[in-house]
Amino acid sequence: MRTITAGDIHAMDKLVRVQFATSLPGPKPICLIGTVNASGQTNLAPFSSVVHLGSNPALLGMISRPDVVERHTLANILETKVYTINHVHVGMVDAAHQCSARYPREVSEFSATGLHEHWEDSYAAPFVKESRLRIGMVLEDVLDIAANGTLMIIGRVSIVQTESVADDGSLDLCALESVASTALDTYFGITPLARFAYAKADRQPRRL
Amino acid sequence: MRTITAGDIHAMDKLVRVQFATSLPGPKPICLIGTVNASGQTNLAPFSSVVHLGSNPALLGMISRPDVVERHTLANILETKVYTINHVHVGMVDAAHQCSARYPREVSEFSATGLHEHWEDSYAAPFVKESRLRIGMVLEDVLDIAANGTLMIIGRVSIVQTESVADDGSLDLCALESVASTALDTYFGITPLARFAYAKADRQPRRL
Repeated sequence: MRTITAGDIHAMDKLVRVQFATSLPGPKPICLIGTVNASGQTNLAPFSSVVHLGSNPALLGMISRPDVVERHTLANILETKVYTINHVHVGMVDAAHQCSARYPREVSEFSATGLHEHWEDSYAAPFVKESRLRIGMVLEDVLDIAANGTLMIIGRVSIVQTESVADDGSLDLCALESVASTALDTYFGITPLARFAYAKADRQPRRL
Repeated sequence: MRTITAGDIHAMDKLVRVQFATSLPGPKPICLIGTVNASGQTNLAPFSSVVHLGSNPALLGMISRPDVVERHTLANILETKVYTINHVHVGMVDAAHQCSARYPREVSEFSATGLHEHWEDSYAAPFVKESRLRIGMVLEDVLDIAANGTLMIIGRVSIVQTESVADDGSLDLCALESVASTALDTYFGITPLARFAYAKADRQPRRL
């Protein structure tokens, strides 16, 4: 094993350090966040930091930097209080990555990348038509992360659109071809490995 | 597409709702968190909420409920201010899942599951010997998430141990066989899909 210290990380060139540090969590989610401003200008941005906070109510968090590319997303969410989370599948990974380019505010990543807006009558933010799992969120809170000036955007799940949900509540992410990611540039397919029964202290692990 | 509303989610049976809500982020990381209390009792618990917060300094967050299984982990981190994050690979997924069982405080998940402690002279929390990517963390902050009473544990990367890091800072998660997860019971292998050049607004996506 090779050991890398905090000093080694600090001494890395900036791009090397970002590549290294953004790989540390392991395989991460990758979702497109759909928003619109009060003038109707839509925006779409990839986030790899969507995290489950609770099930009742269903709450999800995601991390935003106060500056750079996520700025349009953050500004739009603060303005309209709604946003969508759209899974990325294998066939849309090129377009999804392209949404990370720094388009000017007046250019929508939807038209720039060929992805299509999908609107629901009762919901004021754009979904991604091509996505196979779409979540409409309502802003609940924005937390300041004092440690480095980032923010956690916290939202409540309002509606979910997907092809199928099993009777036990599970979503078949392999059938949806949802992808995983690492760093800011790398995407993975997923394959079934194991599903386990609820673990108990007095028995061995039991695969379902 | 089927549409599931917040009302539908609220009306689900509890286990169905948890299964559904914990599947929504898509493929998630899964890491084992190693801790020890002041008396030397070690603990190991799976977390699927590790998230990148920043690269300089390298900061990672993770979500903890104030109660239930993560309680030992949270209590130990607050007591000692250190903890380890250990990637799970394909060959250790049964043992990793078993760490989610509710063992009494005096039982270490290391001995209960057959995983082995690895200690470094300069670092006061146990790593998982079998893990192929191990991160030693120092507690930086604990944020209250008022929306549902959960907490975000924020730590600074102190040391990283792994087999290899590429010159550009990237970690080959496929070679490490790091797994992804969904819900609280399902694990995936990952396969290479694409790596892209930095996206620019004036050119098409370019695969590396």
